[in-house]
Amino acid sequence: MTKRLRPVPMTAENFAPYGDVMEVSGIPDKLINQGKCSRYHDLARLDFSDGRAGISIFDAEARYLPYTVDMVERHPEGSQAFIPVNQVPILVVVADDENGVPVNLRAFVTQIGQSIHLLRGIWHGVLTPIEAPGQFVVIDRIGDGPNLEEHWFDEVYIVEPRGE
Amino acid sequence: MTKRLRPVPMTAENFAPYGDVMEVSGIPDKLINQGKCSRYHDLARLDFSDGRAGISIFDAEARYLPYTVDMVERHPEGSQAFIPVNQVPILVVVADDENGVPVNLRAFVTQIGQSIHLLRGIWHGVLTPIEAPGQFVVIDRIGDGPNLEEHWFDEVYIVEPRGE
Repeated sequence: MTKRLRPVPMTAENFAPYGDVMEVSGIPDKLINQGKCSRYHDLARLDFSDGRAGISIFDAEARYLPYTVDMVERHPEGSQAFIPVNQVPILVVVADDENGVPVNLRAFVTQIGQSIHLLRGIWHGVLTPIEAPGQFVVIDRIGDGPNLEEHWFDEVYIVEPRGE
Repeated sequence: MTKRLRPVPMTAENFAPYGDVMEVSGIPDKLINQGKCSRYHDLARLDFSDGRAGISIFDAEARYLPYTVDMVERHPEGSQAFIPVNQVPILVVVADDENGVPVNLRAFVTQIGQSIHLLRGIWHGVLTPIEAPGQFVVIDRIGDGPNLEEHWFDEVYIVEPRGE
């Protein structure tokens, strides 16, 4: 039996159990550069365990809704931030963990101007720019040892188009 | 006497003494996500001394050429990466250090799709989006102790418009 997911617009509040949304919002923490620049300070709960932070670029193919989720993955040793540099929305599928099995899948779609940070160990779908290829600056753990677990579903999930 | 700087387009090569350019270029280091995503790996020489990496957002006012540089600054304890999320070019002014004094100023303008990383301790002008306001995801050092030095010039520099 196919299970269906309906994506919702991402907000800092609804995504908080899974990670952080980095965006311009509210009162800045500090004005710098003679008042010409607002700083919104330290927005992500980065955690790279015994590794270090690195910056990489991911160049990902476009995907389209409806979209089939047959696998989610997690990185037990580090969190991961994705910053879209070509203003493409991202489909973000996340799940809770129950004894090593991803459950309670949820789907979010980012809004232009939002970057996202996935907490260490959170189950998530692969990077999915919607309707256009996406280029992303990625901050994640550089370090030794295995840092990828995959879970393949016997019954796939279908993420439905928005607004239907 | 006013000194003049003529900006040049930024490349990974011409900017290398001052920092790193993060962009899609050449052969990816790795294909991930069943071949649908290219990873360009570990592109920045991050250095946060005794601090840790943090992600913040800077929201900066538009600046225009000709542009007056009356001050440069440096961060002795950490490097700093700037990722434009609204596709605005950045004017980047950098300088060599000579016994604590910035000398040999140079001006670069980024191209769309480029993000930049300034090495720890490099003299640089303030964040300067050109002709439009800029929103930037910033990765820099979170830590204790002073991490900002400013140098104000007796004779200012003027960065000339491009192509003149």
